[in-house]
Amino acid sequence: MSQSPAAFDERLKINAREIEALLEALLAKPVLADEIARPESLRSAMHYAVLNGGKRLRPFLVVESALLLGGDRQAALRVGAALECVHCYSLVHDDLPAMDDDDLRRGKPTVHIAFDEATAILAGDSLLTYAFDIIAAPETALPDARKTALILALARSAGLGGMAGGQALDLAAEKAAPDASGIITLQTMKTGALIRFACEAGAIVAGASEEDRKRLRAFGEKIGLAFQLADDLLDITSDAETMGKATGKDAGRGKGTLVALNGIEWAETELRRHVEDATALLEPYGDAAATLSSTARFVANRKS
Amino acid sequence: MSQSPAAFDERLKINAREIEALLEALLAKPVLADEIARPESLRSAMHYAVLNGGKRLRPFLVVESALLLGGDRQAALRVGAALECVHCYSLVHDDLPAMDDDDLRRGKPTVHIAFDEATAILAGDSLLTYAFDIIAAPETALPDARKTALILALARSAGLGGMAGGQALDLAAEKAAPDASGIITLQTMKTGALIRFACEAGAIVAGASEEDRKRLRAFGEKIGLAFQLADDLLDITSDAETMGKATGKDAGRGKGTLVALNGIEWAETELRRHVEDATALLEPYGDAAATLSSTARFVANRKS
Repeated sequence: MSQSPAAFDERLKINAREIEALLEALLAKPVLADEIARPESLRSAMHYAVLNGGKRLRPFLVVESALLLGGDRQAALRVGAALECVHCYSLVHDDLPAMDDDDLRRGKPTVHIAFDEATAILAGDSLLTYAFDIIAAPETALPDARKTALILALARSAGLGGMAGGQALDLAAEKAAPDASGIITLQTMKTGALIRFACEAGAIVAGASEEDRKRLRAFGEKIGLAFQLADDLLDITSDAETMGKATGKDAGRGKGTLVALNGIEWAETELRRHVEDATALLEPYGDAAATLSSTARFVANRKS
Repeated sequence: MSQSPAAFDERLKINAREIEALLEALLAKPVLADEIARPESLRSAMHYAVLNGGKRLRPFLVVESALLLGGDRQAALRVGAALECVHCYSLVHDDLPAMDDDDLRRGKPTVHIAFDEATAILAGDSLLTYAFDIIAAPETALPDARKTALILALARSAGLGGMAGGQALDLAAEKAAPDASGIITLQTMKTGALIRFACEAGAIVAGASEEDRKRLRAFGEKIGLAFQLADDLLDITSDAETMGKATGKDAGRGKGTLVALNGIEWAETELRRHVEDATALLEPYGDAAATLSSTARFVANRKS
C-alpha cells in the first residue's frame, strides 16, 4: 500500500475543493422547495461557519471509504457535505460563551463574535438540521434504505449517545477530573463518533456487505483514537500561532487528557499503535486502500 | 362533522398520555445500539425539557391526520414524538439568555435555569438530533421511502427555511419592526411550518395520495395561521398567571403582531375565517374528519 505524500495531499485538496463547491451551492441564496424564505443574517452565518478553511477530513473519509467499496462519488460527496455541516455546527456551539467561550477559530473570529450569540445558536441549529435535509433530499441519489441507515447512524453519532453527550462530559470534566477510562469515553463520544461515522458512512453509501461495513467502522474507530491523541499532543507541543486558536487551554482548565495522565512518550507509542491497527484493518483491500492508509498516517502526523 | 367537546378533550388527553409514555421510553436511561453512553446530566435535561406538561397538539395532529387516511397509529405516534422533540428543542433554545431570555415556561423554571446554559444548549441540540433518530429507527415501522419523505419535510420545516429562520426574523424584528407581510412570513416560518408539517406528516405516514397530502398540508397551514392569531390575541388579553409565562412581552419589546397592527376585532374575524377555511378543506372526508375539525376550533379557542 504505497502512495506518495504529494499524491495524498493533492487528493485531499481536490476533495476539499469539491466539498466546498457543494457547500457553497447548498448554502446559496435561492430557497429550496418547501422553504418559506432564507433569512440573510442566518444564511450568511451558516455560510461563515462552514466555509472556514477546514481540511474537510471527515468528508474525505466518507468519499474514500465509499470509493474503496465501489460507491458513487457524487452521493458520497453529498453525505460528506452533510457530515461537515454537523461538524461545523458542533464547533459553533462549542465556541459559545456558555461552553468553551472561544473568540477565535483558525485565526478568525468565531461565529458569535462575527455575528452575535443568538445568530450563532441558530446557525448551529440550522446546520444540524440541514445535514439531515441534505441526505434525505432527492439530489442524493441513493436507495431510501441507505439514506435511512445513514440518517440513523449520523443521528446516533451526533446526539446524546455520541458527540453532544461527549461535550456534556467534557463540561462536567471541568468540575471533576475523569480517570483514564472516563477520558476515553468522553473522547470517543466527542471526537471519535463522527470520525467512525465518516468511514462507516462510506460503506453504507456503497451498499457494502455487513463485514465491510464493520471493518470500515473499526478503521474509523482507530482513526478517531489517533486523531484525539494527536490533538492532545499538539495541544501540549504547539503554540497559538500554529493552531489559530488558544492552546494549552485544556490542561489549564484542569481537563485531563491521556497525554497529561500518561506522558508524551506513552502517547506517541499509543498513537503509532492506533495507526498500525488502522492500516492492518485495510489489508484485505490491498493497494486500493492506499489513500485510506495515508489518511491514517496523516491524522497521526498533522501539525495543525 | 359533529363531536362533543368532551369527546374531543378525552381524545386529546389520551393522545397526550400515549405520547408521553413513548417519550419516557425514548428518553430512558439504557443506551441504544451504537450509543456509547447516555450522560445523565444531559439525558435528564432532555427529559425535563420534553416531559413538561404540554398539550401535545402537534403529535395529535400527526396521529389524527394519519388515522383519517388509514395510517398506522403506532408509526404516527413515533413520528409525533419526534416532532415533539423538535418543538421542545425550539422552546429550550428560544428561552436562552441570548434569545428571549425567559426564566419560566408553563410556570416552571426553563431548562437553562433548572440546569445551566451549556446543558440547555446541548439538550436542545440533542433533542433535535434525536427527532431524526426516532423516525429513521427500525422501531418506526414504515417503508424507507416514507421515512425519507418525513425526514426531508421535517428538516425543511425546522431549519433555515422554516422554524429556525423564523426565530432569526423574530430577533431581527426587535430592531426593525416588520410590516404586515413581514410579520406573516415570520410567523409562518416560526410557528406555522411545524404545524403544517404535523398534518402533512400524517398523510406521509399513511402513504396517502399526492392530493390528500396537499389537502392535509393546506389544512395545516390554516391551523398554523389560526394558532398564531390566537396566540397573539391571548398575549394581549391573558395575564401571566393563566399563561405560565411572561405576557405582553412581544408588544412591550416592540415586536409587531397582526393584532397590534390591525386590532382585536379584525383578528377575531380573521381567526374565524381561518377555522372555516380549515374545516372546509376537510369536507371530502365527511364525519371521519370530525376530530381534525374539532382541533381547528380548539386551536382558535384555546385559553392558554
